[in-house]
Amino acid sequence: MVNTLFLPELREMLAEHNQAELIEFCNALNPGRTAEFMEGLSNEEAWEVLQYAAPSRRSEIFGYFEEERQLAMLYKHDPSQVAELVEEIPADDRVDLLQELPSERVNQILPLLPLSDRRNIQRLRAYQEETAGGLMTTEVAKLGQKLTVREALDELGRQASELETIYYLYVVDEDNMLRGIVSTRQLVSSLNKPNRTLGEMMESDVVVALVTEDQESVAEKVERYNLLAIPVVDSGRRLLGIITHDDVIDVVREELTEDAHRIAAVAPLEDDFLRIGLYTLSWKRGLWLTILFFAALLTAFTLRQYEAELEAYAWLVWFIPLIISAGGNSGSQSATLVITAMTSGEVKFHDLPKVLVRELAVSFMLGSFLALIGFLVALFIAPSLEGALIIPITLLSVIICGCMCGALLPILFKRAGLDPALMSNPFVAGIVDILGIVIYINVARALLS
Amino acid sequence: MVNTLFLPELREMLAEHNQAELIEFCNALNPGRTAEFMEGLSNEEAWEVLQYAAPSRRSEIFGYFEEERQLAMLYKHDPSQVAELVEEIPADDRVDLLQELPSERVNQILPLLPLSDRRNIQRLRAYQEETAGGLMTTEVAKLGQKLTVREALDELGRQASELETIYYLYVVDEDNMLRGIVSTRQLVSSLNKPNRTLGEMMESDVVVALVTEDQESVAEKVERYNLLAIPVVDSGRRLLGIITHDDVIDVVREELTEDAHRIAAVAPLEDDFLRIGLYTLSWKRGLWLTILFFAALLTAFTLRQYEAELEAYAWLVWFIPLIISAGGNSGSQSATLVITAMTSGEVKFHDLPKVLVRELAVSFMLGSFLALIGFLVALFIAPSLEGALIIPITLLSVIICGCMCGALLPILFKRAGLDPALMSNPFVAGIVDILGIVIYINVARALLS
Repeated sequence: MVNTLFLPELREMLAEHNQAELIEFCNALNPGRTAEFMEGLSNEEAWEVLQYAAPSRRSEIFGYFEEERQLAMLYKHDPSQVAELVEEIPADDRVDLLQELPSERVNQILPLLPLSDRRNIQRLRAYQEETAGGLMTTEVAKLGQKLTVREALDELGRQASELETIYYLYVVDEDNMLRGIVSTRQLVSSLNKPNRTLGEMMESDVVVALVTEDQESVAEKVERYNLLAIPVVDSGRRLLGIITHDDVIDVVREELTEDAHRIAAVAPLEDDFLRIGLYTLSWKRGLWLTILFFAALLTAFTLRQYEAELEAYAWLVWFIPLIISAGGNSGSQSATLVITAMTSGEVKFHDLPKVLVRELAVSFMLGSFLALIGFLVALFIAPSLEGALIIPITLLSVIICGCMCGALLPILFKRAGLDPALMSNPFVAGIVDILGIVIYINVARALLS
Repeated sequence: MVNTLFLPELREMLAEHNQAELIEFCNALNPGRTAEFMEGLSNEEAWEVLQYAAPSRRSEIFGYFEEERQLAMLYKHDPSQVAELVEEIPADDRVDLLQELPSERVNQILPLLPLSDRRNIQRLRAYQEETAGGLMTTEVAKLGQKLTVREALDELGRQASELETIYYLYVVDEDNMLRGIVSTRQLVSSLNKPNRTLGEMMESDVVVALVTEDQESVAEKVERYNLLAIPVVDSGRRLLGIITHDDVIDVVREELTEDAHRIAAVAPLEDDFLRIGLYTLSWKRGLWLTILFFAALLTAFTLRQYEAELEAYAWLVWFIPLIISAGGNSGSQSATLVITAMTSGEVKFHDLPKVLVRELAVSFMLGSFLALIGFLVALFIAPSLEGALIIPITLLSVIICGCMCGALLPILFKRAGLDPALMSNPFVAGIVDILGIVIYINVARALLS
């Protein structure tokens, strides 16, 4: 829903070049809301409005636009205006945006930035996107341990407008080695002892992320220790930057969405669903769809083996989709539950026996119930009581097999170092389909011979 | 992996009642790490160690234990010791824990708490768990607008140890109405103007959550505006509490995990996968499994209609599972992609035409490729060229149908106010299964007659 509340007024202000009101509009509200009220404007109009905001405010409002609008703005407008904006965007977001722009455009903008920003951008670009280095920002409050509470607060006041977060101060030595951490909370609580030094107050047992560490592991640390931000260090424990809590929410969202995709046998998309190229999307889906297809092809060859039985008892054919789907659905329930429980850390390898025992119990209950319904229907379709009995026996066995496979495979895959979400669903589906048919025909043979 | 690094030393300290070292152990590290080093201890040993920590530290360490251990400790130990601990636990976590304990036990503990805490617990318990009220904590920094920067900092210093977060100050009037917000960052940046008042500095356009607001909507606001905390107000805009960023991460995780479960046709679990009762689990799974089962039963009746064709061309039977699973898999890919894109806000109702056009293109590419493989296999199995042609034509049609259903249904369900994740997969599966069989037999009829 696009917010159109202020749209006519905004357009009028623009037409009249009403400087006073436009400046007021840019400053009166929370920048996130200002951005929302601008959603209905064209990119050109929005850019014009932005020019009335002070540079730091301008980049804040800009930060709340959709990525598409951000990129269009950086791509189209006057390079010197763009550079002025880029200078103010937080270091981590800036690098991500520049990476999406064509390199000719980046080469136009970069020379217009101050040398320090240019260096900073080049350094950050060197890190892999899904690592701590790719997430961090370099704007961090670094202070020496000899500073007193009073001095630290003053210094923080001076730096505050430059920093993305001021809620932790990082204490470093002359070589930029991370020595400890002091929270602003501690600082504020110590106002009555203004001469205590940071060195005396600091917590030296700091939870850190290594610059090359995977983003999921970073997110896990931030969640486990309830941090507002985590410092990023190199292998020599030199402080390189910090990752803030809002970036961590994005990682959690990304990671769980990828899980859901993998469970449905789609390789993780690196872009928005509506923006990703159709060939890329087909490839991400086609790969696993093809693997699943080959697994399903095996069912054709399996059924062919049982040609004689299927011709002799034609009604057996009618239940094939039912049996396969009952096994597949119960298997995918188990697999999804186990995979999400492993992602959230609830289920570990040593829980395997417990998981299997519980799945056995649940699948026995579910299977018995569905078998009963199946039996009633089969009584009505099958020519004899022995014939009708094939259906419930098969259903119960297939559902138990489906649940056991669905629970077992993700845990085994994870143990083997493979991605449980990507590998398990195709495997479960393939195995349960074939197993289902084999069980079905063999039960039928036993009862009908 | 349980951390066993300090385990022998810890046990020795306990055996010797080595007070100095145990106090040191409780205070030297980050409380999250202290809790980790205690993982290997029995609940009794861990409780004994905790008694050496100062009350506020004790509750911090306790906060990092697994919920199971927390509950066991609150359940078992001396009520007065337990009450001393409960008094220090943040208000929101405390209520959640007490709700899990048997009511006899709660009635033992409550009378031992100070009156104000007891009232607070009773008030918080009244809110629904999945609303803003159920998530919020009442420990919030409330200040009057006449306070100066200097006075506000002093006041904050006094309150800091009581508060869960001190990073926003909420400015309220005499009736506790929320008037504005000042960040600690602003306060620290204004140290050089110590006589400015909060009223002058405050942002009065505050993003708030209504106490009855659903937790997903709250999480969405916190993410959209990159907040560290969001104030919770009643309908008269009186400030009741705040929700902090760490609780928001939990909500995002919960919401996306529920999505994944619903996509696999499991009703959301209200408890951990390993802790939930087996009957409850069976019910949460069985309901949808039964609905899917009835959908699959329709395939049996559909196939029965085509008895004549299936007897005349027995080899057609062998491809039934292949065709059904190709349609089902491509449909579940589309449904999952669309559902996750709707959850993250990327896809809205007005994107429907775009989504369908893209799905049509992708399914045509995927379908053609799989049809080609299917054709090659069919050439080898089917008795004639016309016969073999049935397979690719059916596969292409079924895959296109699967993708279109998978994309369309979640969007329509959401539009109709139903949960897209819970309803779509069963429907897609059911519809595509039957559609697949109908298409298959009719293509066969057309080509073989």
